[in-house]
Amino acid sequence: MAPPNDDNTAAEVDEDPTPKRHISRVDSVGTVSASLLTYASIQALQPDLIINAGTAGGLKAKSASIGDVFLASHVAFHDRRNPLPKRDIYCIGLRQAFSTPNLAKELNLKVCKLSTGNSLDMSPQDAAGINANDATVKDMEGAAVAYVSDLMKVPTIFLKAVTDIVDGDKPTAEEFLQNLATVTAALDQAASQVIDFINGKTLSDL
Amino acid sequence: MAPPNDDNTAAEVDEDPTPKRHISRVDSVGTVSASLLTYASIQALQPDLIINAGTAGGLKAKSASIGDVFLASHVAFHDRRNPLPKRDIYCIGLRQAFSTPNLAKELNLKVCKLSTGNSLDMSPQDAAGINANDATVKDMEGAAVAYVSDLMKVPTIFLKAVTDIVDGDKPTAEEFLQNLATVTAALDQAASQVIDFINGKTLSDL
Repeated sequence: MAPPNDDNTAAEVDEDPTPKRHISRVDSVGTVSASLLTYASIQALQPDLIINAGTAGGLKAKSASIGDVFLASHVAFHDRRNPLPKRDIYCIGLRQAFSTPNLAKELNLKVCKLSTGNSLDMSPQDAAGINANDATVKDMEGAAVAYVSDLMKVPTIFLKAVTDIVDGDKPTAEEFLQNLATVTAALDQAASQVIDFINGKTLSDL
Repeated sequence: MAPPNDDNTAAEVDEDPTPKRHISRVDSVGTVSASLLTYASIQALQPDLIINAGTAGGLKAKSASIGDVFLASHVAFHDRRNPLPKRDIYCIGLRQAFSTPNLAKELNLKVCKLSTGNSLDMSPQDAAGINANDATVKDMEGAAVAYVSDLMKVPTIFLKAVTDIVDGDKPTAEEFLQNLATVTAALDQAASQVIDFINGKTLSDL
């Protein structure tokens, strides 16, 4: 079974051009599509390991710089606020990434905590959540990938490259677009190194 | 195939009590679990119609009152802020519910717009998004259910019962818990009436 088609595929536009369908023709972002893709990919591929590689905002207060590539030790949500007993913990959804000390050491990757939310910007409430999660980087998918891979018991690692400084003085969207090409090239290189390192090893070697 | 187990099942606690697993033992809430459940349910059941029935916060500025049960005409997200071109529209994710004018008339249900976010409270940014979505009620699942059912082309209706007034002066969590039992009883009754009305009809009769 293939992952669910998203609403940005040309095929779907041609097949079902009903007025009510919302065709944005952009890559999917955010926790909903990330969780669906993770679930469908696990069903289709039954992987031994998932690598969630992507861009992220970094906090200069936690010493992140543009172009840094981090491995996440922990992931959690920062925009699921719920004060009800136990639901607070459920919504924050703190999970450990699969631990890969040899990989981190061999490739000289920095390790930090990752916080996930569905907005590109950082509202004051988001900033409080990111701070409570002790995160150095924020993305829009990681904790949703972790939620599903934890349910399905598939070890997952998170590789996040910093495109913008969320506690800096530049507008996030502008800084993101300005750095996207060079930072994704750095991410591409790091992801290739990670795959080369993993190749031929068992999970406990990582 | 069954829907994915969530992390609140006793079975899973017994089978995999590893320290890293996050066991909250609460019902799942929010857009990630709603999208997964919708996807897995469509795969398993291939339904003709989905009814997303649940509780919601209501806006008194839009004349919502505790215990009101609404049918949603449109759903959208209010906590996926993204200023990048086209991604703004993707993230808001406005979709029409399946139109059921006969159902609304026969059961005398109010019709309004629904806005979805992952927090029980309403931050100033959430309030702006809910206002931009012209919503009378806010929930934590609807727009995610709509995203998936739209991808999978399954007609979906949304039945939302108001447990708390989000622009009122009572703390949301307190008001939610205070009204939960009576409002879910009203929702239960409305959902039964909706199912009775649908029974024996075709989609175009609704």
